[in-house]
Amino acid sequence: MSGFAGHVLALAGGVGGAKLIRGLALQLAPAQLTAAVNTADDFNYLGLDICPDLDSVTYALAGLNDEKRGWGLRDETWRFMAAVERLGGESWFSLGDQDLATHVLRTARLREGASLTEVTGELTRALGISVCVAPMCDQPVRTLVDTGEGQLAFQHYFVARRCEPVVQAFHYRGAQAAQVSTPLADALVRPDLAVVVICPSNPFISIDPMLALPGLRARLEHLPVPVIAVSPIVGGDAIKGPAAKMLRELGLPVSAAGIAQHYGPLLDGYVIDRSDARLAGSLAPLPVHATNTLMRNDGDRADLAGAVLRFAEHVI
Amino acid sequence: MSGFAGHVLALAGGVGGAKLIRGLALQLAPAQLTAAVNTADDFNYLGLDICPDLDSVTYALAGLNDEKRGWGLRDETWRFMAAVERLGGESWFSLGDQDLATHVLRTARLREGASLTEVTGELTRALGISVCVAPMCDQPVRTLVDTGEGQLAFQHYFVARRCEPVVQAFHYRGAQAAQVSTPLADALVRPDLAVVVICPSNPFISIDPMLALPGLRARLEHLPVPVIAVSPIVGGDAIKGPAAKMLRELGLPVSAAGIAQHYGPLLDGYVIDRSDARLAGSLAPLPVHATNTLMRNDGDRADLAGAVLRFAEHVI
Repeated sequence: MSGFAGHVLALAGGVGGAKLIRGLALQLAPAQLTAAVNTADDFNYLGLDICPDLDSVTYALAGLNDEKRGWGLRDETWRFMAAVERLGGESWFSLGDQDLATHVLRTARLREGASLTEVTGELTRALGISVCVAPMCDQPVRTLVDTGEGQLAFQHYFVARRCEPVVQAFHYRGAQAAQVSTPLADALVRPDLAVVVICPSNPFISIDPMLALPGLRARLEHLPVPVIAVSPIVGGDAIKGPAAKMLRELGLPVSAAGIAQHYGPLLDGYVIDRSDARLAGSLAPLPVHATNTLMRNDGDRADLAGAVLRFAEHVI
Repeated sequence: MSGFAGHVLALAGGVGGAKLIRGLALQLAPAQLTAAVNTADDFNYLGLDICPDLDSVTYALAGLNDEKRGWGLRDETWRFMAAVERLGGESWFSLGDQDLATHVLRTARLREGASLTEVTGELTRALGISVCVAPMCDQPVRTLVDTGEGQLAFQHYFVARRCEPVVQAFHYRGAQAAQVSTPLADALVRPDLAVVVICPSNPFISIDPMLALPGLRARLEHLPVPVIAVSPIVGGDAIKGPAAKMLRELGLPVSAAGIAQHYGPLLDGYVIDRSDARLAGSLAPLPVHATNTLMRNDGDRADLAGAVLRFAEHVI
């Protein structure tokens, strides 16, 4: 435990985000942390409502995530998918037999009229998670990717096309008509809110969809507490995923500096990898802290979270 | 192959029904057989549309059914259900990991607007089944059981309460507003229709729901071809399931004779077990054929189907 005082709002999506959320949960009392999670890569598949980022955060917090594969549940089996293939069903996205329980129960509750916020609360509590895990919003927002091959739905681009098409722009359909979820809105007005952490997630597909929600970016920029991002880029590459490829294709520097440039005036502080420490000068006047940002195990996750929290106490 | 000429319409539900359908398929060319299947014990569970009788027939025809357990798929695993329990979801009805693919794909297609007849055709064709497997109707019909403990939904009575409450009457909610499915209606008017076989299914919960569909019972009674039932009762007990208990509670003879009495003038012929041959006299003038009705393997199933078809050629 870090001894950090106050509430932490963390914005996350994807595997890197889930890892830092796990680290923050190891450093804070459960009531000190709100994890607001991207839902713009949610999709309907085989009639089921799949929320990859909410599940990554949930499984990481429950300690049930598969460390090797990087996504989904540990000790997973794939009998369902084999049977789907035998029946000639869609099978471009693999759902594990255990993971499926999450999707089936969520879909059933949403069909009954529950909100995604409610369902996420039910699923996380059932797994013994006391941290508040909140979808960014309860309305459907969907990332669309403009590419050299035309506009693609996110999961089509990401899974079926393996991020191969060259990206030109991102759109977050539905974001303008959505509103931040109640737990996220509540966290923003907490008198004890002490820091907003932008996790080392892909800015274009995990964080920007949240920032596209009406008013959220402005709210974050005018908060009296620091907004601190952790770079998902180390050296010239993403730790995982297509962030580096996207930076290149969008004409941004393929480095931690490119990420900071993209976030712009939103950031009050920036955590980069120790190996990128030389970038600190070029990022001035943005306060920068260099540390180990690779999270291979819970020790690394807790260390990075602790470093982010200590840095936050010194920013502003 | 039996060398039987003409088309066979078989009415079935439950495990015994699925076994004789399998036997008939072994004796006939695929185009000679229409299996019309009870849907009144279908239910929605975890948001999924479950059709136990359609699946029993489908899995038996595909040779994928579990012979030992008596229901579901062979080599089944249960990781999904364990994960549902971990998440605190409903778990009174066990869905296997492979079986789940059937329910998920069917639910998705029904949500898309496909009829149950269409979806059943898709699923059976995907498994290489050429026999026409048809739901009795495309509209929801649900068996309700009046018991000493009040009225229970069928699956609640059957699975959750293990058939323990004493039955007083059965209702088939929705039957009056439903209509026989197109493949079933088509089979009834085929010029080459040669026999209707009522499989050794539970009359109250598998066959009566079909007979409650508007006009079907009258159509069957006035067909120019024989309607032949196979008794699901051997000696004083059902081969499987609660048929004997139901006969007793409804005040009918607990024997093959009780089943014949229940079907009444619908029957033109009746196949009973060899061990019940002494009942033949009491069933007169109904033509009766006694043979082995226990179907432990495909040989037994083909033998019984062959005996039913040969008997049909001699009735009327």
